[in-house]
Amino acid sequence: MTVEVARSRGPEAGAVSELVAGARAGRPRAVARLISLVENGSPLLREIMAELCAGRPRPARIIGLTGSPGVGKSTSTGMLVRAFRERGRKVGVLAVDPSSPFTGGALLGDRVRMQDHATDPGVFIRSMASRGHLGGLAWAAPQALRVLEAAGCEVVLVETVGVGQAEVDIASLADTTVVLLAPGMGDGVQAAKAGILEVADVFVVNKADRDGAQATVRELRNMIALTEREWRPPIVPTVAYRGEGAEDVIEALDAHQAYLEKSGELGRRRHVRARDEIEAIALTALRARFAHLHGDRRLDALATRVLREGLDPYRAADELLAATC
Amino acid sequence: MTVEVARSRGPEAGAVSELVAGARAGRPRAVARLISLVENGSPLLREIMAELCAGRPRPARIIGLTGSPGVGKSTSTGMLVRAFRERGRKVGVLAVDPSSPFTGGALLGDRVRMQDHATDPGVFIRSMASRGHLGGLAWAAPQALRVLEAAGCEVVLVETVGVGQAEVDIASLADTTVVLLAPGMGDGVQAAKAGILEVADVFVVNKADRDGAQATVRELRNMIALTEREWRPPIVPTVAYRGEGAEDVIEALDAHQAYLEKSGELGRRRHVRARDEIEAIALTALRARFAHLHGDRRLDALATRVLREGLDPYRAADELLAATC
Repeated sequence: MTVEVARSRGPEAGAVSELVAGARAGRPRAVARLISLVENGSPLLREIMAELCAGRPRPARIIGLTGSPGVGKSTSTGMLVRAFRERGRKVGVLAVDPSSPFTGGALLGDRVRMQDHATDPGVFIRSMASRGHLGGLAWAAPQALRVLEAAGCEVVLVETVGVGQAEVDIASLADTTVVLLAPGMGDGVQAAKAGILEVADVFVVNKADRDGAQATVRELRNMIALTEREWRPPIVPTVAYRGEGAEDVIEALDAHQAYLEKSGELGRRRHVRARDEIEAIALTALRARFAHLHGDRRLDALATRVLREGLDPYRAADELLAATC
Repeated sequence: MTVEVARSRGPEAGAVSELVAGARAGRPRAVARLISLVENGSPLLREIMAELCAGRPRPARIIGLTGSPGVGKSTSTGMLVRAFRERGRKVGVLAVDPSSPFTGGALLGDRVRMQDHATDPGVFIRSMASRGHLGGLAWAAPQALRVLEAAGCEVVLVETVGVGQAEVDIASLADTTVVLLAPGMGDGVQAAKAGILEVADVFVVNKADRDGAQATVRELRNMIALTEREWRPPIVPTVAYRGEGAEDVIEALDAHQAYLEKSGELGRRRHVRARDEIEAIALTALRARFAHLHGDRRLDALATRVLREGLDPYRAADELLAATC
């Protein structure tokens, strides 16, 4: 783990107001530029966030989509973008791709399928790298969301490959978490393992025209019956590449949204999210202090003592904190 | 994200020396108990780590195994345990399972297959949850490793489901990272996406008796040819459930170990690991301070101001740090 807050030359200070004004006017280039600055930890980050927040944008409805590779996430995201656009909603998409930890760039690939929305001024699509920063999603995504909210997005779809930690991260980021499965991928057992039963608000069984779709639905239903959550996640079969089931997914999403509002859960989720965001920023700042304040020598010296002198790492951490805070 | 440092009642203070002595004597129950205490963030953690480090255990050779679900990770781990045992090595296994983020328990399942080693006093097998703590693997695994080292393990296999962040985490934890693939799982493209080409030290193509194994090997070879790493990861076909290829995997592991020693990379990796460990402990301590020092009210109040008053999260983080550090 190394601090990767890039020291890239950003735009001049005066340019921030201009970019934020551009984003508010819905200009895609301004939106893209701001998300890049946010993602790369621009030195102007603080100024950008202050300007964005000063405008008090309306919170978007945040929908997370997650699932194993090959389950049809991007196709499903595309289907939902279309459905929300038909309802006149301005839509943002954050596609959080696992990418190289060392090059830092999100690869293209599935993204290409989204290009039928590329010329629609009511859709903003953006790939983000999920790595390189402490907290990953928790750190960069909320800030990218603020940019999309400033641009007037009413719905933001956050798409991520879901095995392991990513699902939990997305669940803590989203109002509604959609878990996608496909028949015959052995997803049932994997589902239980990865704890998705506890984070999924809506299950979508995509590729429902394939053998085994009914069995997957049945298996999920049995597993859901064993959980004790107040909200029972609906299970929606779809064939995303043909657009089949889009209406049913929207209906399930709306039902969950209504539940969130009625139960007070929406407010609670937003509160936790704000806490997480503040905490992630504070920890990132401290981490930068660890690394930069002493030109990295303090931590190096402590590591050497742990390796060579049997210094225990707790005592080393005490020394680090004493020197930094 | 909430602080989940459990405040569980641990054993009495005097018991730590006894447990550590038990671990050094290779008693499985002492080893298991210590890892549980470490994993649950016992209040005795500091004392345990100090005692473990004071004994200056010999560093184990740490081998990470990662790959998508269904690729045969646990079977392969079992195969390697057998091979190392045949060479007289004392072996530890840390199986880092994605588990429920809310219940905190690692599910059984694949673990069962390991039970042919359950009565071997030269093998310690342990499932760990990968969640619930800041840093996940980075936080708990190095401490569990210290327990296994104290117990005399010469080799520790760390097995984890590998999609996304887990691979990077395991690569930063291990001396040698083994990435497992299986034919016909569309792993090629996924491989590039997840950045495994940059973290894999050895590729194992398991289920090599299936159609497409040759194609997978070929595809990998072509991708490796495009990378610029000094170490060229070997590609080893195996049929793990029949034990086929075990010798070849060991040979590849030994070759990489020799490279690590000769190039000085082993020392560098260990140094980075010690840094990461110290940093993770320091950040966890700070996080606990954020949450506990003010009885959680400070962070809550800041979150409310972010949500209701348009306070920007950077200014909120400043206030949090000013109040804590």
